[in-house]
Amino acid sequence: MPVNQTADIRTRIGANFSAAYTGPLARLDDYKLELPALKRTVKGKLFIKQFLGLSGMQISMNKLPAGAAVPFYHQHRENEEAYIFLGGSGEMQIDGEVFAVEEGTIVRVSPAGSRTLRNISDSDLYYICVQAKDGSLNSETMEDGIKSADPVIWPS
Amino acid sequence: MPVNQTADIRTRIGANFSAAYTGPLARLDDYKLELPALKRTVKGKLFIKQFLGLSGMQISMNKLPAGAAVPFYHQHRENEEAYIFLGGSGEMQIDGEVFAVEEGTIVRVSPAGSRTLRNISDSDLYYICVQAKDGSLNSETMEDGIKSADPVIWPS
Repeated sequence: MPVNQTADIRTRIGANFSAAYTGPLARLDDYKLELPALKRTVKGKLFIKQFLGLSGMQISMNKLPAGAAVPFYHQHRENEEAYIFLGGSGEMQIDGEVFAVEEGTIVRVSPAGSRTLRNISDSDLYYICVQAKDGSLNSETMEDGIKSADPVIWPS
Repeated sequence: MPVNQTADIRTRIGANFSAAYTGPLARLDDYKLELPALKRTVKGKLFIKQFLGLSGMQISMNKLPAGAAVPFYHQHRENEEAYIFLGGSGEMQIDGEVFAVEEGTIVRVSPAGSRTLRNISDSDLYYICVQAKDGSLNSETMEDGIKSADPVIWPS
């Protein structure tokens, strides 16, 4: 279990929302994650669920430094993952297949996919990872949305 | 229903994954989304689920131009939304409460939250929106992950 996230995160809470300011991507190293089970401390990785009270997904903001690699393969029990790459470049390996990733690459991984990631470039690699329960989305996008007929009013 | 997404997206498909290259954020205007129900065409909005076969979430990549505003409030039937702001600045309004958003702001909205967004800056506002079924995440993060003991091997 990730513990002791060293985070000084401003949050704003409403009846139907919560908001957190986590800082710019370039400052992700300010966050450290202790992983006792893996006997590791990871810099540049921030899990968001606990701060926002997310109930349908977990989100992490990630920086993989130039030359760094995730040192293990992993699968999931029931969660789908989506990796959204935002800057830098690297390589992803899934079930032994290797492909390049960069800003604009988005990758879906099924629970059974054995995955790892490395950065073989001279620049830092930034990405978001989202976990949601595989097969759990019933209704989609505009079908799930309810558009209001009320005019939008912004306070002046 | 969003139709006719004008997208020329390269995808790579494996047994347990799919990957798409959607291009840099700054090129999001290349994507147009036809919304017949709303009689609108939206530029700079790309829904990802259909390209990747996502089953637990929908993801959209979004650009809201300088000075632009979402012209309606909306709620959801069963999905939680997370807005992850990546660049620029703007204001979000939820249930009448207004607050600033910028790179590093992440917002959770419950299905019932009546939400809208505007960009009152001189720069474009970039954000990712993720939808997942509210309350659907059973197991989390490392508890859901299965770490392999196999050493990582990258082909040379």
